[in-house]
Amino acid sequence: MRTAARRDALRATAAERGLDAVLVTNLLNVRYLTGFTGSNGALLVRTDGADLFGTDGRYTTQAGTQVPDVELLVGRATVPALAREAVRRGARRLGYESHDLTVDGLHGLERVLDDAAAGGTVPELASVRRAVEAQRAVKDDDEVESLRRACAVADQALAQLAAEGALRPGRTELQVGRELDARMLALGAEAPSFETIVATGANSAIPHHRPDTTVLRDGDLLKLDFGATVDGYHSDMTRTFVLGHAADWQREVYELVAASQAAGRAALAVGADVVAVDAAARDVIVAAGHGEHFTHGLGHGVGLEIHEAPGIGQLGAGSLAAGMAVTVEPGVYLPGHGGVRIEDTLIVTDDAPELLTLTSKELLVL
Amino acid sequence: MRTAARRDALRATAAERGLDAVLVTNLLNVRYLTGFTGSNGALLVRTDGADLFGTDGRYTTQAGTQVPDVELLVGRATVPALAREAVRRGARRLGYESHDLTVDGLHGLERVLDDAAAGGTVPELASVRRAVEAQRAVKDDDEVESLRRACAVADQALAQLAAEGALRPGRTELQVGRELDARMLALGAEAPSFETIVATGANSAIPHHRPDTTVLRDGDLLKLDFGATVDGYHSDMTRTFVLGHAADWQREVYELVAASQAAGRAALAVGADVVAVDAAARDVIVAAGHGEHFTHGLGHGVGLEIHEAPGIGQLGAGSLAAGMAVTVEPGVYLPGHGGVRIEDTLIVTDDAPELLTLTSKELLVL
Repeated sequence: MRTAARRDALRATAAERGLDAVLVTNLLNVRYLTGFTGSNGALLVRTDGADLFGTDGRYTTQAGTQVPDVELLVGRATVPALAREAVRRGARRLGYESHDLTVDGLHGLERVLDDAAAGGTVPELASVRRAVEAQRAVKDDDEVESLRRACAVADQALAQLAAEGALRPGRTELQVGRELDARMLALGAEAPSFETIVATGANSAIPHHRPDTTVLRDGDLLKLDFGATVDGYHSDMTRTFVLGHAADWQREVYELVAASQAAGRAALAVGADVVAVDAAARDVIVAAGHGEHFTHGLGHGVGLEIHEAPGIGQLGAGSLAAGMAVTVEPGVYLPGHGGVRIEDTLIVTDDAPELLTLTSKELLVL
Repeated sequence: MRTAARRDALRATAAERGLDAVLVTNLLNVRYLTGFTGSNGALLVRTDGADLFGTDGRYTTQAGTQVPDVELLVGRATVPALAREAVRRGARRLGYESHDLTVDGLHGLERVLDDAAAGGTVPELASVRRAVEAQRAVKDDDEVESLRRACAVADQALAQLAAEGALRPGRTELQVGRELDARMLALGAEAPSFETIVATGANSAIPHHRPDTTVLRDGDLLKLDFGATVDGYHSDMTRTFVLGHAADWQREVYELVAASQAAGRAALAVGADVVAVDAAARDVIVAAGHGEHFTHGLGHGVGLEIHEAPGIGQLGAGSLAAGMAVTVEPGVYLPGHGGVRIEDTLIVTDDAPELLTLTSKELLVL
């Protein structure tokens, strides 16, 4: 199973760092490493290979089905129980996720270790930082397939809405957003990836506008930023349309953003510095005199979270690796007038990046 | 504004505990205290009344609209920035949420306080524990109104599905679940309250069954546990039906659970101990010899979270207060055969509890 390979990779990291075991508490990391989709679970990955998965009584059956290959511990206080077992089985140095565990959670762990030591040497706690998130940044084949399906659902939902004429003047942003969401659910999405953005007219100049009762009007821009969740994996796509007919300024801004987005996609290569990828797209917009109107980073990793590593922006750090799933989403926002953003989800490969969001990026006049 | 009164209540708690300010990091607590619905925000409540709300540049406009009455601080690292400001404005003793702040987050705060002290006395950090959650357990009028609307959406969605004959033999659990979700969205829900449970036949004996391709069949039980989110507030309702005709055992189990649920609702009174409320419903099931088949607690608080304080169960603690929103949801599960759960969302009042989920609790044969 894929999840066994993922646990083995974490096991190798733990061994390198001199840990006997790692207590994984971040629920998405637990899902990634086990396949478990319930709302309460934690995982103990041991360097000797005998892992332990903990959850509560609601999930006994589900854990048996989803995590058949890891020993199961059922109980109420999962994290302390796993820590207790780790010590009972000889762990002297236990890794934990300091970016996830709360202050109260750490105090609980410390009490467990004190008790378990029973007067002897108290086992040591050491943060593994974001070791699992670092693994998650590079997707395996199963994950890429889930992302493909998530992107396909979003593509189809938008195609259906456009074909039915649902994106027409007279309707409200909220109506469009709700239909897009309902369509994605009908096509098999578990949920929208995030609160769907529908922004028309001047609202399209607000990068993260929440859809409201604003009415779509002839001649306005219509920006849709949305995605579908499939198997827990999130797609993310933005398309901007014009209703009725496109004015020259709309066409110019659109072509500029499209050129920037193409440059950003072209810069997605194994080993590319994320700051350089951002610059490849940003330079196009800056050269056209609109640098101040591109107010956010170029993109982000996407997977079990809608925003995850790597960040692609001016303040980013690190470089791209094959198998990373990222968005490329430049925008130009003219306050009070309107804005254009174009966004794809792609997979970085040794060759050209694989495009997962297949909806056309021509300027569509609806 | 309601949110100002909520901040004043927290301010009073802070003053009682000798704190100069409280740094609220839990995002739902921030929403409760400010009305802010974005994905990144933190709040500094100061005993001198000069509060400060922090978020990042994506939310400048939204913060201005949703939180017009609190001074705004826009930046990238919101929590350290608020802590820095607290110290700059004279805080010597700063409260924080140890159940929410991560270990890394606390270390970041400690660094900020060390820096801000610049060699002088380092300000002290003290956990306020779940002070805001304790406030949230008692709903104000605005919150009750949101819950009423959330429950009404769920009631209407179910009524529409039943009226259209969508709950009929031959359909799958997944189809029913998706239609219920889509219907709630169409009726104005922001999202389902949680992953909708549709469990038919033997699956109905699994308390938290995930809908799958199991086909609804004549003579089977059909258990639906679902809710709608409106204004961030969650409704929670379970109804169990029989398809075609009801067998004697189904009718008997149903009547038993209905009697238990009525007893639980009748026990909802100001000052009632939550363990006693659980017992009032549980005793009915135990007396009928089915105690072992009621495998979970009786209910839970509901609001900005689907599960929040107070817990109503055998291991609960505390008593009910007027304005608490709670569920009452006993169940009897006969493994391999089927199960019945009946659940309402209600408001505890000085009088009889107010029932918010209005769908009939008669045994409906569809």
